[in-house]
Amino acid sequence: MIRLTGATLLTPEQEFPQGILCIEGERIVYAGSVLGAPPAAPGDETVDLPGRAIIPGFVNAHTHLAMQLLRGIADDVPLQPWLTEHIWPVEDRIGEDDVLIGTRLALLEAVASGVTAVNDMYMAMDRVAEAIGEAGIRGVITQGLVGHADQERRKLRTGIDLFERWQGQLGGRIQVALGPHAPYTCSPSYLKEVAQAAKALDARIHIHLAETHQETRDLAAEGRTPAHVLLDSRLSEQPVIAAHYVAPAESDFALLEGMRIGIAHCPISNLKLGCGFAPVARYRAHGIPVGLGSDGAASANVLDPFLSMKSAAWIAKGASQDPTQLPARTVLRMATYEGALALGLGDVGLLAEGFKADVVVVDLRSPAMQPVFDVASALVYTATARDVERVYGSGRLLYAEGRHLLVDREQIVREARHTAERIAQRAIYS
Amino acid sequence: MIRLTGATLLTPEQEFPQGILCIEGERIVYAGSVLGAPPAAPGDETVDLPGRAIIPGFVNAHTHLAMQLLRGIADDVPLQPWLTEHIWPVEDRIGEDDVLIGTRLALLEAVASGVTAVNDMYMAMDRVAEAIGEAGIRGVITQGLVGHADQERRKLRTGIDLFERWQGQLGGRIQVALGPHAPYTCSPSYLKEVAQAAKALDARIHIHLAETHQETRDLAAEGRTPAHVLLDSRLSEQPVIAAHYVAPAESDFALLEGMRIGIAHCPISNLKLGCGFAPVARYRAHGIPVGLGSDGAASANVLDPFLSMKSAAWIAKGASQDPTQLPARTVLRMATYEGALALGLGDVGLLAEGFKADVVVVDLRSPAMQPVFDVASALVYTATARDVERVYGSGRLLYAEGRHLLVDREQIVREARHTAERIAQRAIYS
Repeated sequence: MIRLTGATLLTPEQEFPQGILCIEGERIVYAGSVLGAPPAAPGDETVDLPGRAIIPGFVNAHTHLAMQLLRGIADDVPLQPWLTEHIWPVEDRIGEDDVLIGTRLALLEAVASGVTAVNDMYMAMDRVAEAIGEAGIRGVITQGLVGHADQERRKLRTGIDLFERWQGQLGGRIQVALGPHAPYTCSPSYLKEVAQAAKALDARIHIHLAETHQETRDLAAEGRTPAHVLLDSRLSEQPVIAAHYVAPAESDFALLEGMRIGIAHCPISNLKLGCGFAPVARYRAHGIPVGLGSDGAASANVLDPFLSMKSAAWIAKGASQDPTQLPARTVLRMATYEGALALGLGDVGLLAEGFKADVVVVDLRSPAMQPVFDVASALVYTATARDVERVYGSGRLLYAEGRHLLVDREQIVREARHTAERIAQRAIYS
Repeated sequence: MIRLTGATLLTPEQEFPQGILCIEGERIVYAGSVLGAPPAAPGDETVDLPGRAIIPGFVNAHTHLAMQLLRGIADDVPLQPWLTEHIWPVEDRIGEDDVLIGTRLALLEAVASGVTAVNDMYMAMDRVAEAIGEAGIRGVITQGLVGHADQERRKLRTGIDLFERWQGQLGGRIQVALGPHAPYTCSPSYLKEVAQAAKALDARIHIHLAETHQETRDLAAEGRTPAHVLLDSRLSEQPVIAAHYVAPAESDFALLEGMRIGIAHCPISNLKLGCGFAPVARYRAHGIPVGLGSDGAASANVLDPFLSMKSAAWIAKGASQDPTQLPARTVLRMATYEGALALGLGDVGLLAEGFKADVVVVDLRSPAMQPVFDVASALVYTATARDVERVYGSGRLLYAEGRHLLVDREQIVREARHTAERIAQRAIYS
C-alpha cells in the first residue's frame, strides 16, 4: 500500500488538512482523516507531504496531442488563414511516426502538469494509444472523421476498426469514441451513418460543436441548431462529448437536457482564436457536466490545466460581470470530475474509495504562493503547472520532483524538435 | 563588464539569435549581434546562455504590493462585500511594519518572475520604498489619498512629504507620484487641490479611473466622463497614470490625445472582479502607451507578468472576436517599454544602449515549451514565471537559478505568514 500523509486532501465533499490517501494497486482504498485510515502494515510505502495539496489527476477533455509539434507555428492570425495557410499544409506532411513523436512530446507536458486522462481526436490513433500507454495515463481516443464524400466511408471504417482494436485495452486505460469532426465538415447523411455505427458498437461520440458564432448562424440559415444536429442525426442516442460549444442556440438548452451529453470547454483556445465565451454556468445549471480542455497546442500553445482553470474562472466572471461565477471549487471539480463524467470515465476524478488512483501532489510552499488561506483558491488562482510535484496514474508513480519516470524525456524532446523542424520546414529556436 | 552571450535578444526593433548583451555599471552598453560588440577585456564576467531569451525587465504598472498578505482571503465574492466585509476590516489592522513585511513578500514573487519596476499605491509608503530598495528594483510610489473631508488635507500633506523625502532617492530608483485614489473617493474640489500640489512639485499623478462601468455611468449622471474629471480638476496638466480604465466614455478618446497619459491595464483583476474588458487596442491606436499591471494580490492572486501578458492577449482577442489583436510582440512591449513610458521611466524597458540594465533571462528549454518556432510567441503564450532564470536590476544580479541574492527569502516568508495570520485573524495553511 502507498500512504500519502501530511497534505491537504481535496475530496468531493470535504477538505482534510493533514489527511491521508491510501493506494492499493490501481485504486484508492482510503481518502480522509488520519483517524479512520487503515493501519500501516510492513512493506507499505509512506510519503510524508506537509505543505502540499493532493487532488485528483486532471482530465484534459478535448485535445489534439500530436499538434504539439505545431506549437507557436502561427499565432495571432485569423482562423481561416490559420487553417488553410499554416496548419493544413503542414499537417499534410505529418506521417504516422510523427503522430507518435508529437503525442509523446505533448504527454511530457501533460503529465508534468498533472494530467492523467486525455480525450484526443486526431489521426493515426494507434500511435496515440501507444504513446498514452507508455506515459501511464488513460485516454479516450477518436479518429477524426473529416473529408470529402469519397473518403467518408473509408474513414468511418478506420474509426470502427480503431474501436474494435483498442476499446478497453491496456487494462481499460484506453477507451474509443467515434469522432465526426463537426457539423460543417460532415454532411447530415454522413452524421447519420456515424450514429448508426456508434449505436452498433455502443460507442461514445466526440464532436466539435458550435465552436464559433458563425457556425451557429450558418446552421440557423438552414433552420437548424447545434443541438438539433445531434438529435436529427441520432448521434444524441449515444453519449456525446461536445467540444467547445461556444455558441448554443437558445432552444438548445431544453433539447440538451434529454441527452447524455458532456461539454469540453476550451477557454484558452476560444479566447485566443477570437471565438467568444461559452455559457458554462448555464450549461451547468441545466445539469450538464462541463470539463476543461486545452484544444491542441497549435492554437492554445499550452496543455496546462492550471491555465485552463484560471482562464475558465476569469472569463466566466469577466463576461458575466459577476465575480461569483465559477468559484474555485467548481473550477477544480470541472477540471477533474466533470471532465471524467463527460468522458464516461465513471471511477475517475475524485479522491474517494474505489476510484482509480489518478492522483496529483501540488507543492504549495513556493514563496510566490504565500500566504495560503484557502487551498482550493491557491490551486486555481495561484498555483502553476510547475508546482506539480508528484503524479500517480492508476496507482503508478509517473512523475516526481521534475523527473518523468516511465519515459526518456531527453530522447523524446530531441526527436520531437527534429520532427517539428522537418514537417514545418522552418528552423526552430535552439 | 558583464557579457551575456548565446541567447536570443529581443531588442525594440529586432531579434538577435545568439546575440550579446553588455552591461557596464547600471546601464546596457551594447545589445545586438556578436559582430558589433565591444571586445572582451580581462576581468569581464561572461555568462553563456544558449537556449534562453533575454528581455527587458517587466514593469508592473499598477499594484498594491503589501496586499500580498491578503492573497486568497476572499475570492469569488461581489466587489462591494469583498471590500466592506473582507478587505477593509482586515486593512484596519495593518500597521507600518506589516506593510514592510507584505511588500517584501510581494517582491519575492515579483523579482522571481522578472519584474524590475513597480508602480505601487498604498499607505506607509516609506516602508514600501525601503522594501523596493532592499530588493534592488525600481519603483514609483504613491500614498493613496482616500478619506473623509477632515482627513483630506492631512493625507495630501503625507503625499507631499513622501515626494519631498523620496523623489529621486536610491540613485533615482525611487520616483514619487501623487495618488488621488479615484473620482468616486475624492471630491472635485479635493482633486483640484491635489492637482495644484502636483503642479507645484512637478509630480506625476497615479489614479484609479473608470474601473467599472458603474463608475462611468455614475459620472454620466452628473454630466461628467472619466477624461473630463482629469481635465476639469487640472490633474491632466501633469503626466497621469490611469489604472484600469475599463470603461471610457466615447468622448474620452479625443480628450486623452491632448494629455500626457499612460494606462495601466490590469486584465486579471478586471476579469476576476467582473469589471469587464478595457479597450486596449483603441487606446493604443490613439497613441496612448498601455502598460500591464497586476493590481494587488488580494484581487488578482498573482503578480506574475507572464499571466498578465497571456490574459491581456487572450481577452483582447476574445472580446473583439479578432485573433490578430495584441499580437505577442505588442504584448511583450506593453509589459516592458510601454509600462515604463506610462510611469515616466524614460531609460527603462528596452534592451538598448544607454538604457538601465534591468534585464531578464528566460529559459526556453523546458520540455513543456518545445518546439520554439518564435521566441516572442513562446515568451507570451507558453512561458511561465517559473522559467525565469536570472534577473538583473540596474546591472546588479538580483535572482539566479531559483535563489534571491539580496534578501533572506526564508525569513521574509516566515515573517509574512505570521503577519498574515495575525491581521486576517484566520489560520493559514501550513
